[in-house]
Amino acid sequence: MTVLIAAIICGLLAVIYGIVTRRSILSASAGSAEMQEIAGAIQEGAQAYLNRQYKTIAIVGVIVAAILFVTLSSLSAVGFIIGAVLSGVAGYIGMIISVKANVRTTEAARTSLQGGLDVAFKSGAVTGMLVAGLALLAIAGYYYYMTVILGLDGTSRSVIDALVALGFGASLISIFARLGGGIFTKGADVGADLVGKVEAGIPEDDPRNPAVIADNVGDNVGDCAGMAADLFETYVVTIGATMVLAALLISNGASQIMELPLIIGGSCIITSIIGTYFVKLGSSNSIMGALYKGFIVTAVLSAVVMWFAMSWALGGDMNSNLYDMVSGRDLYYCGLVGLFLTGIIIWITEYYTSTEYRPVKSIAKASETGHGTNVIQGLAISLEATALPAIFICVAIIVAYKLAGIIGLGFGATAMLALAGMVVALDAYGPVTDNAGGIAEMAGLDEEVRERTDALDAVGNTTKAVTKGYAIGSAGLAALVLFGAYTADLEKYFPDMTVNFDLSNPYVVVGLFLGALLPYLFGAMGMTAVGRAGGKVVEEVREQFKNNPGIMEGTSKPDYARSVDLLTKEAIREMVIPSLLPILAPVLTYFVINAIAGQAEAFAALGALLLGVIVGGLFVALSMTAGGGAWDNAKKYIEDGNHGGKGSEAHKAAVTGDTVGDPYKDTAGPAVNPMIKITNIVALLLLAFLAH
Amino acid sequence: MTVLIAAIICGLLAVIYGIVTRRSILSASAGSAEMQEIAGAIQEGAQAYLNRQYKTIAIVGVIVAAILFVTLSSLSAVGFIIGAVLSGVAGYIGMIISVKANVRTTEAARTSLQGGLDVAFKSGAVTGMLVAGLALLAIAGYYYYMTVILGLDGTSRSVIDALVALGFGASLISIFARLGGGIFTKGADVGADLVGKVEAGIPEDDPRNPAVIADNVGDNVGDCAGMAADLFETYVVTIGATMVLAALLISNGASQIMELPLIIGGSCIITSIIGTYFVKLGSSNSIMGALYKGFIVTAVLSAVVMWFAMSWALGGDMNSNLYDMVSGRDLYYCGLVGLFLTGIIIWITEYYTSTEYRPVKSIAKASETGHGTNVIQGLAISLEATALPAIFICVAIIVAYKLAGIIGLGFGATAMLALAGMVVALDAYGPVTDNAGGIAEMAGLDEEVRERTDALDAVGNTTKAVTKGYAIGSAGLAALVLFGAYTADLEKYFPDMTVNFDLSNPYVVVGLFLGALLPYLFGAMGMTAVGRAGGKVVEEVREQFKNNPGIMEGTSKPDYARSVDLLTKEAIREMVIPSLLPILAPVLTYFVINAIAGQAEAFAALGALLLGVIVGGLFVALSMTAGGGAWDNAKKYIEDGNHGGKGSEAHKAAVTGDTVGDPYKDTAGPAVNPMIKITNIVALLLLAFLAH
Repeated sequence: MTVLIAAIICGLLAVIYGIVTRRSILSASAGSAEMQEIAGAIQEGAQAYLNRQYKTIAIVGVIVAAILFVTLSSLSAVGFIIGAVLSGVAGYIGMIISVKANVRTTEAARTSLQGGLDVAFKSGAVTGMLVAGLALLAIAGYYYYMTVILGLDGTSRSVIDALVALGFGASLISIFARLGGGIFTKGADVGADLVGKVEAGIPEDDPRNPAVIADNVGDNVGDCAGMAADLFETYVVTIGATMVLAALLISNGASQIMELPLIIGGSCIITSIIGTYFVKLGSSNSIMGALYKGFIVTAVLSAVVMWFAMSWALGGDMNSNLYDMVSGRDLYYCGLVGLFLTGIIIWITEYYTSTEYRPVKSIAKASETGHGTNVIQGLAISLEATALPAIFICVAIIVAYKLAGIIGLGFGATAMLALAGMVVALDAYGPVTDNAGGIAEMAGLDEEVRERTDALDAVGNTTKAVTKGYAIGSAGLAALVLFGAYTADLEKYFPDMTVNFDLSNPYVVVGLFLGALLPYLFGAMGMTAVGRAGGKVVEEVREQFKNNPGIMEGTSKPDYARSVDLLTKEAIREMVIPSLLPILAPVLTYFVINAIAGQAEAFAALGALLLGVIVGGLFVALSMTAGGGAWDNAKKYIEDGNHGGKGSEAHKAAVTGDTVGDPYKDTAGPAVNPMIKITNIVALLLLAFLAH
Repeated sequence: MTVLIAAIICGLLAVIYGIVTRRSILSASAGSAEMQEIAGAIQEGAQAYLNRQYKTIAIVGVIVAAILFVTLSSLSAVGFIIGAVLSGVAGYIGMIISVKANVRTTEAARTSLQGGLDVAFKSGAVTGMLVAGLALLAIAGYYYYMTVILGLDGTSRSVIDALVALGFGASLISIFARLGGGIFTKGADVGADLVGKVEAGIPEDDPRNPAVIADNVGDNVGDCAGMAADLFETYVVTIGATMVLAALLISNGASQIMELPLIIGGSCIITSIIGTYFVKLGSSNSIMGALYKGFIVTAVLSAVVMWFAMSWALGGDMNSNLYDMVSGRDLYYCGLVGLFLTGIIIWITEYYTSTEYRPVKSIAKASETGHGTNVIQGLAISLEATALPAIFICVAIIVAYKLAGIIGLGFGATAMLALAGMVVALDAYGPVTDNAGGIAEMAGLDEEVRERTDALDAVGNTTKAVTKGYAIGSAGLAALVLFGAYTADLEKYFPDMTVNFDLSNPYVVVGLFLGALLPYLFGAMGMTAVGRAGGKVVEEVREQFKNNPGIMEGTSKPDYARSVDLLTKEAIREMVIPSLLPILAPVLTYFVINAIAGQAEAFAALGALLLGVIVGGLFVALSMTAGGGAWDNAKKYIEDGNHGGKGSEAHKAAVTGDTVGDPYKDTAGPAVNPMIKITNIVALLLLAFLAH
């Protein structure tokens, strides 16, 4: 119980950090009236979008909660609501702070680079800490309520189901937020680019472009609120699934082990908060260096603090066996595996998406021979970029299993996710600087200021890519833990049934195929939606230009709100059907195979589907996010004066590659993360339902 | 024995059809001296390339044969050589007839459309019948030699190993031919387009372009010789693996069942030959209709003839149980499943790649808003196009398994492949018409002739796409049969070892990840190779233009042979390393996991790798081939006058999409087929080696 309370206190600390830091950001100057007006428009658009998005999700959410209430229990329904609401809150507040920090970053950048970095990173840190803090509070708090206040056994069915339902709530918000935000942001981006840069020949972020505010709104609702919901979800699901696994697999002393993931999460919140204070420009003035300093401090401290926290929770004994010859020390080593994997994935992603290395340079060079070769090379890089992460994930799986079985994998994933506060901070920094640059351009600030915001923004591109690599890597591990919970659950619920998970079972083969199909179909829907939304934006902007010729002459203002409104409706309409795919697919697979070949084969096919979606989804998501990041930075690399620089033929080709990469890296790719987990969670809930 | 002889006679019939038809093609007029000169250059280039390619493969082949001789047996080594040599022969002769038929098609098209269609299709049919005939001869003949002449038991280890080695020989040629040919043809295509259409502003197939002959050579070495080797391999592997499975799984009367796939193959050769005579333009003058008429006649006849052939081979008794409650009738139904699947996959591929339906039209429409949206929509379609084939493959798997177990799947795949003669005929028709159009353009023939060859060529694009869908679908099934052989083999060779193929085994999970990774890495290598080769062509052409300004003025001829020579060297250099990937990966995986966790887990991981490469590879290959075909025809659709027609901005965007699709559909995608099977075959050989 003391462990639980300690975890809850750590969660509260994160929230307090958020409140304090928010105040310090708001106290900074918001710049001139013009800047504030622009920022106000962005703010208004972002809030309008999120309000509408959450309203739509709420409808689905209420229905799902009712279903859970009827089919499972009130505890599950409440868990679902807690997960959904807190995920929404984390995203919403993060977005609010982000749209207030953008203009303050621009203003601070008028004085110094360090000033701009400070505001932007602090804003990211608020989102990051809220994500980690609220996620930990959700799971630790609800677990405390059920086990201490209600007095339920931590390993009982009702607690397990409620934890799974909590994860489901978070996942549902996450897939909608990821997809909806992704379609909005990339519809705006693609549309604004096409009609602005290509047709009208005006630069990016030009205030004459009616879609320019929508583009800036998109950064916040996609990269900030979307990523926040994604990692909130992965956090809750990973820790929850590890706890569920411990409850299912360990017969004696499970409660003690169930509390360990919570204290790992709690202790790493503290190291993340400490890490934020190390984000300072050094003598080299390297922004990336400053951000990495913060991350490295957090990671190294976490490796140390995790030992003491676990040791404290286990009463100082890290060497006695907790289960099956596995000691606290073994579980700690599994945590280290997770930390190492985080570092390696970040390093690999940076290799594939930074302008300094071969991959991005090769795309930039290929741009010299045209649009086609740019895209070919980008696709080649996106395929290639899956190899190293996959191999290291395999290594992590083997090491964690060897140390402590499937629960060990859960601890590896937990440690990986425990850094989420810091990682989200790095990511949420991105949209703030992106907006800051836009505001500087629209407000017509000095070249010097624009240069500073550009420098901040360029790093933001890399951190956004790196976070996506981390998100999908951790999602893969989390999903494997969920899959472990599925097989363990099956044995508990249906002890008399022999489910043949053997690869030679045709229903397993079919399940693998169907599972691997889901990310492809889902990706296709996401890409098409962006194409459609982008097309609508183009039409809308063309119409505004036509009806109001004063816009291009700069004599009258475009109607920014109309584009925002259009995209809001589009994104919300487009997000619903793909989001239902991972919910319906496992249910449908189960019932169809059940009708054909009976329940045992249906469970086998369903299990294989879960693994198929993990394996298939990991590659689709990794290739899309890495490829998109590489295309983006290849364009930046050319804009820095290589291969002819801005305006050259190579640059035009690189713009095409960047456009292609946009929905890859910001819509379809990242939305695969929650999709993988939802499929697995729905299967777990289906099992619970069938057993009831 | 009579069944075997009947199968051999059918194989010989196919070869005789080839010889006779070849003569009838050669007797047609080869046109003017100018046309013959152009055709001569293509012929020379194609022969030079294939000679060099086969020389390189021979080096690898001799080494592998020696390894097989030492580690397994002389029978295996000889089997390997037969598979490799006959595969090479089928591709080589097909290519030779193709480069002689191209100019004759142009000449015949001067008189009538039917004339052109006749020559082009007959040329394709020669290749098709040679592929099916030689493949059947290889396997039936060698089986006859071993069982009847040497008197070995058909189910003995030495025969099984020799059959697997025969498949390996075919696979090795196939992966080299597919990759080498694919890199050559698309390097030429991409390079010629970039430097010709984009830089110099000259049309496709303009004789002033120094890479234009290389482009035409590429059609023959890629689409004709490459596809021939691919389907030769799938044919041999499918029938061989089905025979091996029967030998491994059936204890009594296996020999009788082992002969059934051979007679299915034999009877369908006859129906394919009959089908070729139904390829005639009807009153609607529809070329596609004429080709489909031939295919449908073949398919329907095959469904009927297969029954009688099987019934004859089983002594008229289709209802008695042959093994495990499975009768000849059940196996026949499995064959029907294969035929249905062929039809469905052809229909789905046509839906996704023909200009008549939504997918291609949506890409064409997206081209209006630029290069970026064209590529985005194309990628979305390529992802989406995997869904229906995957679902129908799952249905086929379930039905075949329900009817007759894993052997039933083998019979489904066998029937699918039995149509290979006809399908290859449709495909090999493509490069002939493509060349015919090029020759018409280069020789400056009348607009009317060019229109006819264009009409023939447009259909060729669709048949090429359709064949690729068929090839990958059948490759997937064949690989599943090989995987079945792997698990059966494991039980025979290591009866005391319990290999845990359960999805909850971490080594199975790791194997699935590593397997799914292979097509990604392989695809990346293929795409990069094309980009590099295309870049080299651009440089070469630029140099020729610079050193010899008379080329562009039309006063002096470019040095075509230099570009051909450059590409030959490039393609052969680039094909080696990717081709070794599927050979080394299973071996490496086995030894690494063996060192970490022992032999049982190594076998589990290896088995999972095989399934991972099948599942992952199927989606990668399906998406690449369908996407590439769709991009290609979206360009054609615009060129037909839609969305602004030739020269419009939409057309430029569509050219970009087509360029991107080129290596997708003609290099990386199709090369995944043999890769999937090689991985599986190497695993089988590794088992045999470890057991010895």
